[in-house]
Amino acid sequence: MSNFGFFRLRVVNPYAIAFREARSAVGAADLLASAEEYKSVAEAVADCTLVVGTTAVGHRELRHPLRRLESGARLIRKEAMSARVAVLFGSEKMGLSNRDLSHCHWLMRIPTREAHGSMNLGQAVAVCLYELARDAKAAGREDKPRRAAAGDMERITSLLNEALRLSGYFKSGTPASTEDKVRRLVRHLNIPADEAELWLGMLRQIMWKLRSGIVG
Amino acid sequence: MSNFGFFRLRVVNPYAIAFREARSAVGAADLLASAEEYKSVAEAVADCTLVVGTTAVGHRELRHPLRRLESGARLIRKEAMSARVAVLFGSEKMGLSNRDLSHCHWLMRIPTREAHGSMNLGQAVAVCLYELARDAKAAGREDKPRRAAAGDMERITSLLNEALRLSGYFKSGTPASTEDKVRRLVRHLNIPADEAELWLGMLRQIMWKLRSGIVG
Repeated sequence: MSNFGFFRLRVVNPYAIAFREARSAVGAADLLASAEEYKSVAEAVADCTLVVGTTAVGHRELRHPLRRLESGARLIRKEAMSARVAVLFGSEKMGLSNRDLSHCHWLMRIPTREAHGSMNLGQAVAVCLYELARDAKAAGREDKPRRAAAGDMERITSLLNEALRLSGYFKSGTPASTEDKVRRLVRHLNIPADEAELWLGMLRQIMWKLRSGIVG
Repeated sequence: MSNFGFFRLRVVNPYAIAFREARSAVGAADLLASAEEYKSVAEAVADCTLVVGTTAVGHRELRHPLRRLESGARLIRKEAMSARVAVLFGSEKMGLSNRDLSHCHWLMRIPTREAHGSMNLGQAVAVCLYELARDAKAAGREDKPRRAAAGDMERITSLLNEALRLSGYFKSGTPASTEDKVRRLVRHLNIPADEAELWLGMLRQIMWKLRSGIVG
């Protein structure tokens, strides 16, 4: 909850010992300290205009509309802009009872594969809240690493070609087109702008050693 | 992993006891039994054409392109159609080391809030694999519950109006427009097709009782 910015935890008849232990979880102390305890689902959701149950489906005869998380989350986000929404999770062992589910407007399921539908509670909560906090548009907005400029790439190419000549990789009679091939190979490297200088430094050092070896 | 249909687990220098215990997890036995053990990250990812590290960022000086999960997953799905992709997770306590990260083509982070970035390992894995298995188009395809037909809604309206008359809710002199108001209220109820009959049954029973009370 804290990872994804959800701060209002309401617990219905928690197991006292486990609840106390949970309050000591790293980084989540405030959230748990302010968690509200209720005696019934009805009281816990009384001020919510939308109550969504979570389920792994399976054996139960469901009388509720069932939505996949991807589309359910969209409806929840919309409602949550102007009103309070409860997302109900059952206990690790039992899930939500049919009575719990009767308080829900509709149900939501995480799209797990049929052969292994039921999830660990903590993971199910994390996945649901991630989807609620997910920002489809963020993908396009993020910083792409800037590529090195053509000038740096050409300096790298020259140094590499020179090193290849000095080291004997280019035999005498190697056509000039081989240097162009090296240029193409270097262009495929996709070197980030802030790493070009490192490559130039490494190549200069190699060149220095190659030259001093030849001279000495 | 099993929930979201990922079956190839590779572990690098696992803590033997914890690994043995994990193999007894409910529903995941096959996956863990077939997990492959490696001595180094290099060996574990040797046959992968794309290696993506996961990180909560924070204090480390990152020299890698860093993508949000929403966009990173898109690139992984694309690559995975024709080649093998490794998604690397660090240990619960330490995360990935800088040496581990040096095997990665780029890094990916779950969009947690800044004040609480670091996630529980199991939850982080679940969220990443959910995003990889996520189907944005599934939202539109799912079954919407069919609404009750206008005929059923009108039968419900008639019974309710009659019940209101019999019970004295409509005083003499109540204008006919009040029945139209009840019709509007009923239309707002959004009754699913397969539940209309239940409502009709309940109203008929109430009507029967109201009538028998009056007669008796």
